Amino acid sequence: MRIITISREFGSGGRELGKRLAEELGVPCYDQQIIEMVAEKENLDKTYVSNVAGQNISAFYPSTIARGFYRPNYSIMQSTQIMASQHDLIRKLASEGSCVIIGRAADVILADQKPFSIFVCADEESKLKRCHARAKADENLTDREMLRKCRDIDKRRASYRKMFTDKKWGEASGYHLCVNTSGKEIKPLVSGILEYIERWYSEE
Amino acid sequence: MRIITISREFGSGGRELGKRLAEELGVPCYDQQIIEMVAEKENLDKTYVSNVAGQNISAFYPSTIARGFYRPNYSIMQSTQIMASQHDLIRKLASEGSCVIIGRAADVILADQKPFSIFVCADEESKLKRCHARAKADENLTDREMLRKCRDIDKRRASYRKMFTDKKWGEASGYHLCVNTSGKEIKPLVSGILEYIERWYSEE
Repeated sequence: MRIITISREFGSGGRELGKRLAEELGVPCYDQQIIEMVAEKENLDKTYVSNVAGQNISAFYPSTIARGFYRPNYSIMQSTQIMASQHDLIRKLASEGSCVIIGRAADVILADQKPFSIFVCADEESKLKRCHARAKADENLTDREMLRKCRDIDKRRASYRKMFTDKKWGEASGYHLCVNTSGKEIKPLVSGILEYIERWYSEE
Repeated sequence: MRIITISREFGSGGRELGKRLAEELGVPCYDQQIIEMVAEKENLDKTYVSNVAGQNISAFYPSTIARGFYRPNYSIMQSTQIMASQHDLIRKLASEGSCVIIGRAADVILADQKPFSIFVCADEESKLKRCHARAKADENLTDREMLRKCRDIDKRRASYRKMFTDKKWGEASGYHLCVNTSGKEIKPLVSGILEYIERWYSEE
């Protein structure tokens, strides 16, 4: 049984690494499918679920609460429901067998199953390069705009993770292995990571 | 040419990992010898140099400076001298050929030579176990005392690193690879790390 989780900075190649590890291990890799499954189950729009599911619930609360009577609104209750649904789904997928799960603080949600957790990061130059290369044809962001996008997404990811653990997003001690892909292609790095994971599990 | 630097939490097994990597690569591993060489060069006591060389220079400045005329005292000037001497020595050792250097923010000092930098961490349970196992016979610290010692040393290391870089000590993006040795022996983990390093260099 191998449950591998990937947390990653936007543009670091974490998703590619997860897919390649899953391929090498012959196990499924769950990423966007989680959103699709949650959207289907909750009968909601995929894009809406995608926006809600990766955010700290606090984002849906008003930043100041008037002194009077305060009642959570519909979007707060729905975001909590989406979060719970995603949580259950991650646990269900992991219980079905070995897999790679990308994002969604899966390492913390599955902590009792002792997943092998990886954090992937890179310097801004490399992230920019990767982001521009994979950007949609109609997405003409300048470097500055792209960097702002990267930072915003990472900020949201860090904030999301905060709901589940005191360990800061991107702090080495919160993961089993952190790899920095600055200036590197992902493919050649896979074999060393796999070898490390195998040794790590064989020492159980 | 392989310059590998190890930063590590106290008790994480980082020193053992560095030694084993050096052994496998057939290259020298510099750790305490750096202190000894600096002490010899500066004609100072080894223990004194060891205490001074790993601290942020700010530790030698008074925390409040009286309004009047302030003159740096002897210990401040000496600590700066020791720091400079250590800096030169690290650069000299790295220029002589492949090696592993443990601690002393060598990854930042040698940044222009593109060393492969590793950070090693572990959970407190594992660090306690390792620290007790290697403690001197006359060092009878309770778990609580040992943990305080670990935290104090790590705090000093983090503060020392701050002199050289904005990247926080222990933050994944400041290193090429971070390994968490919680509950693991070091030896079995070496081959995966070596494989990773080889692939990393071969992609240069």
